[in-house]
Amino acid sequence: MKKIQVGVVGATGYAGAEICRLILGHPEAELAAVSSVSFQGMALSEVYPAYYQICDMVCEDQETVVEKSDVIFAALPHGLSQELAAQCMEKGKVFIDMGADFRLESEELYTQWYGGSFQDQELHRQAVYGLPELFREKIKGRKLIANPGCYTTAVPLALAPALKAGLIQPEGIIADCKSGVTGAGRKPTQSNHYPELNEGFTAYKVANHRHTPEIEQTLSALAGQVVPVTFVPHLLPINRGILATCYARLAPQATEEAIWEAYHAMYDGEFFVRLLPKGQCANVKNVRFANYCDVSLFLDQRTGTFIAVSAIDNMVKGAAGQAVQNMNLAFGLDETSGLRLTPPAF
Amino acid sequence: MKKIQVGVVGATGYAGAEICRLILGHPEAELAAVSSVSFQGMALSEVYPAYYQICDMVCEDQETVVEKSDVIFAALPHGLSQELAAQCMEKGKVFIDMGADFRLESEELYTQWYGGSFQDQELHRQAVYGLPELFREKIKGRKLIANPGCYTTAVPLALAPALKAGLIQPEGIIADCKSGVTGAGRKPTQSNHYPELNEGFTAYKVANHRHTPEIEQTLSALAGQVVPVTFVPHLLPINRGILATCYARLAPQATEEAIWEAYHAMYDGEFFVRLLPKGQCANVKNVRFANYCDVSLFLDQRTGTFIAVSAIDNMVKGAAGQAVQNMNLAFGLDETSGLRLTPPAF
Amino acid sequence: MKKIQVGVVGATGYAGAEICRLILGHPEAELAAVSSVSFQGMALSEVYPAYYQICDMVCEDQETVVEKSDVIFAALPHGLSQELAAQCMEKGKVFIDMGADFRLESEELYTQWYGGSFQDQELHRQAVYGLPELFREKIKGRKLIANPGCYTTAVPLALAPALKAGLIQPEGIIADCKSGVTGAGRKPTQSNHYPELNEGFTAYKVANHRHTPEIEQTLSALAGQVVPVTFVPHLLPINRGILATCYARLAPQATEEAIWEAYHAMYDGEFFVRLLPKGQCANVKNVRFANYCDVSLFLDQRTGTFIAVSAIDNMVKGAAGQAVQNMNLAFGLDETSGLRLTPPAF
Amino acid sequence: MKKIQVGVVGATGYAGAEICRLILGHPEAELAAVSSVSFQGMALSEVYPAYYQICDMVCEDQETVVEKSDVIFAALPHGLSQELAAQCMEKGKVFIDMGADFRLESEELYTQWYGGSFQDQELHRQAVYGLPELFREKIKGRKLIANPGCYTTAVPLALAPALKAGLIQPEGIIADCKSGVTGAGRKPTQSNHYPELNEGFTAYKVANHRHTPEIEQTLSALAGQVVPVTFVPHLLPINRGILATCYARLAPQATEEAIWEAYHAMYDGEFFVRLLPKGQCANVKNVRFANYCDVSLFLDQRTGTFIAVSAIDNMVKGAAGQAVQNMNLAFGLDETSGLRLTPPAF
Repeated sequence: MKKIQVGVVGATGYAGAEICRLILGHPEAELAAVSSVSFQGMALSEVYPAYYQICDMVCEDQETVVEKSDVIFAALPHGLSQELAAQCMEKGKVFIDMGADFRLESEELYTQWYGGSFQDQELHRQAVYGLPELFREKIKGRKLIANPGCYTTAVPLALAPALKAGLIQPEGIIADCKSGVTGAGRKPTQSNHYPELNEGFTAYKVANHRHTPEIEQTLSALAGQVVPVTFVPHLLPINRGILATCYARLAPQATEEAIWEAYHAMYDGEFFVRLLPKGQCANVKNVRFANYCDVSLFLDQRTGTFIAVSAIDNMVKGAAGQAVQNMNLAFGLDETSGLRLTPPAF
Repeated sequence: MKKIQVGVVGATGYAGAEICRLILGHPEAELAAVSSVSFQGMALSEVYPAYYQICDMVCEDQETVVEKSDVIFAALPHGLSQELAAQCMEKGKVFIDMGADFRLESEELYTQWYGGSFQDQELHRQAVYGLPELFREKIKGRKLIANPGCYTTAVPLALAPALKAGLIQPEGIIADCKSGVTGAGRKPTQSNHYPELNEGFTAYKVANHRHTPEIEQTLSALAGQVVPVTFVPHLLPINRGILATCYARLAPQATEEAIWEAYHAMYDGEFFVRLLPKGQCANVKNVRFANYCDVSLFLDQRTGTFIAVSAIDNMVKGAAGQAVQNMNLAFGLDETSGLRLTPPAF
Repeated sequence: MKKIQVGVVGATGYAGAEICRLILGHPEAELAAVSSVSFQGMALSEVYPAYYQICDMVCEDQETVVEKSDVIFAALPHGLSQELAAQCMEKGKVFIDMGADFRLESEELYTQWYGGSFQDQELHRQAVYGLPELFREKIKGRKLIANPGCYTTAVPLALAPALKAGLIQPEGIIADCKSGVTGAGRKPTQSNHYPELNEGFTAYKVANHRHTPEIEQTLSALAGQVVPVTFVPHLLPINRGILATCYARLAPQATEEAIWEAYHAMYDGEFFVRLLPKGQCANVKNVRFANYCDVSLFLDQRTGTFIAVSAIDNMVKGAAGQAVQNMNLAFGLDETSGLRLTPPAF
Repeated sequence: MKKIQVGVVGATGYAGAEICRLILGHPEAELAAVSSVSFQGMALSEVYPAYYQICDMVCEDQETVVEKSDVIFAALPHGLSQELAAQCMEKGKVFIDMGADFRLESEELYTQWYGGSFQDQELHRQAVYGLPELFREKIKGRKLIANPGCYTTAVPLALAPALKAGLIQPEGIIADCKSGVTGAGRKPTQSNHYPELNEGFTAYKVANHRHTPEIEQTLSALAGQVVPVTFVPHLLPINRGILATCYARLAPQATEEAIWEAYHAMYDGEFFVRLLPKGQCANVKNVRFANYCDVSLFLDQRTGTFIAVSAIDNMVKGAAGQAVQNMNLAFGLDETSGLRLTPPAF
């Protein structure tokens, strides 16, 4: 059978480069073309020497990528995906957007947090939010998929079963998240300059990060009511990984048994969610380079607080891996195809 | 004037070694003797080659340290300080305990969290809790000082002004803390083995850490009522530093102005607390190797949540530096003597 | 076709755990059994939670591993492999030794550097040194393979073409090597305790490391004469990787063209050796988690010095990956089977 | 006595900021003014929040700094110091140049490696090379001091006694050096972007680094003949420190005793050079934030090779600390004034 032809627009950014790595190991898909505004005409392996002699494909322009591919992954700055998506829809291609343009259902929220507008309402109605563990049935066979952000994968997966089962209160949720540096992208900045970041640790965009409305949208859909979240991201001096430490007040009827039952019911059949045994805590170390989301649960009975800690690789389950998972769903493949990677032990 | 003669019991542990570093730069005190059970007879600089030709003092036994010193800093495993404290009191020495033996006022809590008992009630009545910014007047001239733990310095300093002024609710406080590895001490363990920790991040002792009752004791004293805290520590792959991200619900009457006023009123005169300008967030990077506690404030008006983020060097303001600050208070010196260190910029 | 049944003795050490990771992704082999003295009865994923729900195989005893497997990888302390090898030979199994017991041809050198003796001369005569790029034909179909050490892979691959072609002088070679921490194994030690290693860098076993005679044995075989090497290893504060910076005096007749020709001739057909374009330097970053050896060449015409810099992942090409490559050769598989892994770009 | 008024031109670069940190702790000098082209009008503590409330001095222009100061430290890009030096000489100020403009005695070499020319020959004749341990007497009381580079401090201090005593051969010297990232400055670049550097390690400017002629100039002065050096720098994923592993062939008459004697004779009286006991190796960890150069010696008798390993903090003994040491010499102060800092043990 002919392999799915994959195109990556923005292949020299971190998310794009990671998609390429995953597709290189995918049994049913192969790279057809890649593009990059900054590095057009250069080989991907000139930008990332790790790929030397493995993927020396030369960066072409966006149009060529669309032409050659069955599925286009777009890792573009916010606001630039809508036009490309429209082109892909016209040509019957599958479009998986790594950016935020199609994630929010509410144009008002999109305008408030990102400053742009919905250029084509119909296009936005076609889009589906690609968090397979929560919205799998809606994703299957779809052409336009908004791949979630990294925090917006880690936080909902930590809280979904408890929230859906009504075991925690929808008000007062706090998500204290810590991310590796690749989340900020490939472009050098003062704050990601090695000597500034190394041996340091701080919070950023406190209660003001763009992933806030996206997290709330998913949690509200699960709870069936508005769920406000206090979201504080921090920057870890490591390359990969997000740890989301989520706090919620226990609902009056919540018992420890009921909570574990809800999580087992929802996650025991999920290949990529690993519910850790009681007492163990999720660690970003254990999911690096792979598509797992580890989830661990704690109860602070003294204060009536439920604590769920989840870990993902921000570049895999938080970006490229989830995108490939969505591609698999869109094309009717085994959802785990190309993603059965073992995280290294060290 | 003769310098204060300083003895360090347990000098080859991290806290002990850091006290030695600070005393070596103190204009009014000098090292008289050091002891170590594991390294008796060896020079401190054999254990820490950084001190070679600067402090080649040989480790003696505990008795010799007590004999030669005006003040004894004891960095001992929990439970072992009480007898030594009694000896020091008898001989009229000042005793500053780096461990937990004298921190908790309630023997019941001590027994519950540490497993031991108060061996001498009178001794415990003499002890004062050495967090100078909150209890300065009680510390001055005292002989037996319980030096606070690291988390138990960072969390109360973040919340004290708001809590004291009634601007946050005493229930529902969450302290999500992240600590550098030196907090776990010098002894190699699997979890602190370089390849296991590096590029990893996790929480530990979730809602179950021994510093919990100590944090609650301090916050309750400030609030004048019981303040329960959900406390979750995490381990950062860096050497030094604690970042405490503290969440509390705003009291009904709290305004942003009132909060900033309360913090300025309490901290503007404090040499070691730096209240950061609005919009800036504390970073452990900026307090390394020095005795400062940086405090930053944020309001999430959307959810009615107050967020205070503080940063200290866990080995300085969280241990050795605060101990020297307490020594200065006990001997009537300028509180900042020997502690006017500039944190390196990188 | 039935997959090759793989056993790993010492599976909970770093080399053993890495072999397991690679075999889990191998299309023609599968894990049959694993053993561990320290963790017998425990699941591998209890020791390495990264493998949770992927490889929860329980550690058995050594005998069971031999029984169940077609090939046994032994990651044992030096001196303990000889007896096990004999057992495996008797039962017709393939035995791949990760330790040093069969690496040195000279018993005298073995005794001098490791302190033991050759227990069975015949067994040692059967052993072949498993560095495929240099000794491929000897390895094919063999039953007893001594897998090289990490430094002893990186240094010979950097120098082989120049040395074999007589373009560098065999005297005066210097190998200044830098290794990630996993090379020192899983057992916590003071020097690998996170706070001691982090932000530090030093050399160790200067001109006194056990890999010296092994490097010299390989280089001497290539040169056809005794090649003494000054070998100085350093410890890098990173998890994985070896960078070998090798210095040699140019032979009188050596030209830059001749050198590049020699390297192209030897390495252009080698899948796992990537000869970098002129001007680029090998970086351990680019080979992490994969089986490549990157080689880069420089000439210091001012001083008549040839400089070859190679990079490998010490746990893959320097241990587990090379072992799997040897297994492939021993069983007549495609040499790259299970090893076509793309190193992550970041 | 009035303190020496210190001006720092280019105070917001790493070297400039480190000079400020050291002057803030200097008992006989104080900051008079600082300048920065990029941050004029901003407080130093806005650029480096570590200095908040400690040094909130606002960056002025270069002229003001010259006017207000007795000594001017200039941390400028190469080529820009000559004019400023001339101005300072006219006004009778002491000028300490952190850049390379006055380091090389040979204009030909300067032009070859840096591309500029000597604008004022007389000025260059006045300049002295500020490596106090080797050229102390020439520095005392001078007005124009060229502060050495970082590698150019570490390598000569490692080899000086052996070379001066004729115990090593002047040909065939190899300096394999490894530097922390601060050596590359404050400006973000792709190669110093955190995710690119972290967990990586490579060499750069192999046998082609600008410090080569400066190292050779110093070694040649010591040997009394031309000393060519093969110099290969590497970039360590740590903030601070240089480790220089230097290789030389032993001279025929060299004995181990003679070598140790030569080092003791030269360094026993040097406050800032710590000759380590036999068997110990220098580690960048042990000199961080302080002005020491640790030197360790090894003999590879098998190959007739002498190995000297030195460690400095590239920003202190390799830049700002040595500059303050030179200031002390220029003003007739105790050479160690303001520099008696204990390197932290961890």
